[in-house]
Amino acid sequence: MKIINTIDEMRSASRSIKKEGKTIALVPTMGYLHDGHLSLVREAGKKCDYLVVTIFVNPAQFGEGEDLKIYPENLSRDKALLRNLDTDFLFLPAAQEMYPPDFQTYVDVKDLSKNLCGEFRPGHFCGVATVVAKLFNIVAPDIALFGEKDYQQLRIIRQMVEDLNFDIKIVGMPIIRESGGLAMSSRNSYLSADEKAAAGSIYRSLKAGKKLFLAGARNAAEIKRAALEKAAGEVDIDYFELYDTNSLEPLDRVGEKALFAVAAHVGKTRLIDNIILEEDKS
Amino acid sequence: MKIINTIDEMRSASRSIKKEGKTIALVPTMGYLHDGHLSLVREAGKKCDYLVVTIFVNPAQFGEGEDLKIYPENLSRDKALLRNLDTDFLFLPAAQEMYPPDFQTYVDVKDLSKNLCGEFRPGHFCGVATVVAKLFNIVAPDIALFGEKDYQQLRIIRQMVEDLNFDIKIVGMPIIRESGGLAMSSRNSYLSADEKAAAGSIYRSLKAGKKLFLAGARNAAEIKRAALEKAAGEVDIDYFELYDTNSLEPLDRVGEKALFAVAAHVGKTRLIDNIILEEDKS
Repeated sequence: MKIINTIDEMRSASRSIKKEGKTIALVPTMGYLHDGHLSLVREAGKKCDYLVVTIFVNPAQFGEGEDLKIYPENLSRDKALLRNLDTDFLFLPAAQEMYPPDFQTYVDVKDLSKNLCGEFRPGHFCGVATVVAKLFNIVAPDIALFGEKDYQQLRIIRQMVEDLNFDIKIVGMPIIRESGGLAMSSRNSYLSADEKAAAGSIYRSLKAGKKLFLAGARNAAEIKRAALEKAAGEVDIDYFELYDTNSLEPLDRVGEKALFAVAAHVGKTRLIDNIILEEDKS
Repeated sequence: MKIINTIDEMRSASRSIKKEGKTIALVPTMGYLHDGHLSLVREAGKKCDYLVVTIFVNPAQFGEGEDLKIYPENLSRDKALLRNLDTDFLFLPAAQEMYPPDFQTYVDVKDLSKNLCGEFRPGHFCGVATVVAKLFNIVAPDIALFGEKDYQQLRIIRQMVEDLNFDIKIVGMPIIRESGGLAMSSRNSYLSADEKAAAGSIYRSLKAGKKLFLAGARNAAEIKRAALEKAAGEVDIDYFELYDTNSLEPLDRVGEKALFAVAAHVGKTRLIDNIILEEDKS
């Protein structure tokens, strides 16, 4: 695995690969890798000739008072995990390499950034879209993989790719969960044992909502009520709503398919999770 | 010359060229071509294996009450001119091809879009940056050429390329002028003979300012005063200022180099022009 710190070097590696007529798969991460990330890396490795993983804790997607400065890291462990999965290139730029002092260009996916986390983290998705556009131009991948835990992020990136005509295929990968059901996240490392137990109730809530949907319920308020009954008292909710899977507009009534998504604080840790309500699948 | 109307077809043409290991030069235009455009097309033809010209009157860069609906066009003449200059591909998409109904992603180059035309045409440069980003991704050129008449636009595109890491070389080309000195523009076709005569005073004004600069003047107000004396009464000024060539911030005192830029209405027609104040060149 070659470790690359500069944009120029990453770009020239990608150019060489393209010249050979070979393909590149990209997995962008913020590091502190868990099994969710690793499922993306494994899949990426199967899909293309060369596998590029990036680790970059992107300042542009953190708001004031958020956890940029304490975001967990364990680079030596991450490197070992990536080497083990036959990663070809680890792109690891410094913040000033990605955002020089006169940096001022932002990509904004407007409508899709309004609801869900967009309401509680203003500017977050603009930071995400901007850094992903940069990584797409630097790495020039054929495909890029993102986790479905960040459903809104994945939807926004798909829209950006379509709107700005990036010649890149976006692949979403299923949520990987801990044994108690908690969706894997680097931020789970912030949780105490008690908090982790409480956080486990988030997925139980989503599943309770889905159970009611599968039993025929279509009224969003009714589904939410059943779900919320399962949430532990320590779970402080930002949103817990049903949305159209495409437009991300909130739904009063569910049709054939809906996104049931939640963001909640457990102690000082903000967690997100979601489940798709859809018949015929479970 | 192959005429292409769809993004998919343009993209696959570019892919084939890249597969051959050949290079592409792009000249994006809004059509109604004049000698300024043609100087870009000629230069582009020299620089790469394949020459792509786009004609697209981009709705996203026109504000309300602006001239989108009456923007001049003469497609058969444009095609003949481009064929004559050995253009390989003319990309000619419809507005709905570039902006489908759910389009919502915009690129904004923030600081550089504030002054000059940015003040008088809110959203204009966001529309420009967005469509140019799209064209860059669709055509995947090695180089792209833009005229220096639209100095702010050129500066913004350079910044976008740097900030979003497009792997594209941007080439600026000198202003081409009519015999009376008026900078060539498709919008000059709106001018009556009297208006055209008055519009000619814009460049005489810029030259008067430059003359004073070359004689040693460094005070912006003094240079502007000398310039404005040459402007015809029919010229209704939006701005007529000295700017830092890099930051586009207005200057009170000129150092070694400055942009002297003007936007003005002559009748109903809005015109822009500029000159670089710099010693050793004229």
